[in-house]
Amino acid sequence: MIIDQLIEGIKNKKNPCIVGIDPEWCKIPECYKYDSSTKANSILNWATDVIDVVADIVPAVKPQMAFFEVFGADGVRVHQQVVQYAHDKGLVVIDDSKRNDIGNTAKAYAYAHLAKDGPINADFMTVSPFLGTDSIQPFIDIAVKDEKGIFVLVRTSNSSSVEISEATNAQGEKIRNWLANYIHTAGSDCIGKYNYSNIGAVVGATFPEEAQLLRSIMKNNFFLVPGFVAQGGEAKDVMPCFNEDGLGAIVSSSRNVLYKHLEIAEYDGTPTMYVEIVRNQAKTMQEAVYQELSNHYPNKEY
Amino acid sequence: MIIDQLIEGIKNKKNPCIVGIDPEWCKIPECYKYDSSTKANSILNWATDVIDVVADIVPAVKPQMAFFEVFGADGVRVHQQVVQYAHDKGLVVIDDSKRNDIGNTAKAYAYAHLAKDGPINADFMTVSPFLGTDSIQPFIDIAVKDEKGIFVLVRTSNSSSVEISEATNAQGEKIRNWLANYIHTAGSDCIGKYNYSNIGAVVGATFPEEAQLLRSIMKNNFFLVPGFVAQGGEAKDVMPCFNEDGLGAIVSSSRNVLYKHLEIAEYDGTPTMYVEIVRNQAKTMQEAVYQELSNHYPNKEY
Repeated sequence: MIIDQLIEGIKNKKNPCIVGIDPEWCKIPECYKYDSSTKANSILNWATDVIDVVADIVPAVKPQMAFFEVFGADGVRVHQQVVQYAHDKGLVVIDDSKRNDIGNTAKAYAYAHLAKDGPINADFMTVSPFLGTDSIQPFIDIAVKDEKGIFVLVRTSNSSSVEISEATNAQGEKIRNWLANYIHTAGSDCIGKYNYSNIGAVVGATFPEEAQLLRSIMKNNFFLVPGFVAQGGEAKDVMPCFNEDGLGAIVSSSRNVLYKHLEIAEYDGTPTMYVEIVRNQAKTMQEAVYQELSNHYPNKEY
Repeated sequence: MIIDQLIEGIKNKKNPCIVGIDPEWCKIPECYKYDSSTKANSILNWATDVIDVVADIVPAVKPQMAFFEVFGADGVRVHQQVVQYAHDKGLVVIDDSKRNDIGNTAKAYAYAHLAKDGPINADFMTVSPFLGTDSIQPFIDIAVKDEKGIFVLVRTSNSSSVEISEATNAQGEKIRNWLANYIHTAGSDCIGKYNYSNIGAVVGATFPEEAQLLRSIMKNNFFLVPGFVAQGGEAKDVMPCFNEDGLGAIVSSSRNVLYKHLEIAEYDGTPTMYVEIVRNQAKTMQEAVYQELSNHYPNKEY
């Protein structure tokens, strides 16, 4: 079960934090832009350096598909190589692509991103629920068949996410709660040895009270919590996303790890110092969240 | 304005019907599978044959991204080539990829699929609204800047699509109606010379009464109506998606055009007979819908 592998990574590394792989060309250090053949090759050099330097700290990485699509087919080739490289380093890979469609088209997306014999072969992918539960089923089918996982969008961190997630359906349930109940039920068929399901939810960190409610509905489902910045009160804010065992959530940061060098006046422009900054940021995040977890959930399992 | 180009295509060809380009490997005739280097190259040969044979009949084609992603980076390369090929034939290209995300990530998707200097450079793309209006804005921004268009999912043809689209928001509006109002307003800044906007909506053909209501809200917005089969009462069913001028909707068919040969016992396995069947199906669809439009809207503009 892929969720078991993720949990073992979290326990071994004492870290529920993961790093996003978001290649934004204008933010990547110039020192990586030496490969003149294609921008995509420069991205690959950069991404493998980032993976190398965080591989012993984080249990998983989350490549953001959009930032690879910007480079067209070359970018998509590099995305595949990044997934493979992270796998070779023993990391779980969450393909953040928020795909969705109906019928055979949804099956095609599920195959392309998750299938063991597909081109990407990610461990988890993110799925948008707008088209309803019959559009999510093909992703669950592949997850069950190939022992992969999905995270269904429930409540994201942007302010407009209330527009649909807070609407009320015909049964009088808020969409976010209805989705939570659906995920809890749909996920009950693929629960691993630590009592968590391969089917999880994307829940933003910006609404702690809501996260607590969703946590109470989705007892056995992991939350993918994106957009984390390990400073200020944020480590405290994500605590409601976890269970008492200190599990149940992975907290993802991209910009604050990958592009911190842009805020550091002393950054000397070398790859050596760049990866040092990346590593420090990943460690700082691990320490902040692990410390807060220890305070909040003294009986946690790791 | 891209919507003007689409409308001129509809008028010139007397056809609001378009053909989806959905390369499902198991359905494509064996005669196209001679290129042993990659499956993707076979797809390219097949897709260009389809485009050649429908180019004088339809105003636009709609490549479905999911079926290209199945072939990985090679498939995405062929997708780019298919878009370019269709452009060279004078066709409008609707990139059906249902992307969505927030902030910079949404910008990245919008750039990748729509930007004039991006890798795909489609004319229109489909966008999922689950994350709310701030997640749609980056797509509108590129559409306005580069004179492209989008179709926002409002109500799809699958049965589960009611689960979210029929929910009621805090202002007491159904999500589908709220989206329709949003699209009407957001689209008012990019209206072309025929009084239609570059911003449109995806509306399934299976709910005629609802389509009529949505039509009345989105007076200046085109509907992309997918999953059409030109038989039975369907030509009648899509009439509420149109305005009195016979414009306001494009009706898309994939399977019924691309894979009709699978139902024809006399199909001899040659590309020649295959493209003949494709052409006949595209023509049948044009005739059925144009006839019904003439009955329904005698004052239509073409």
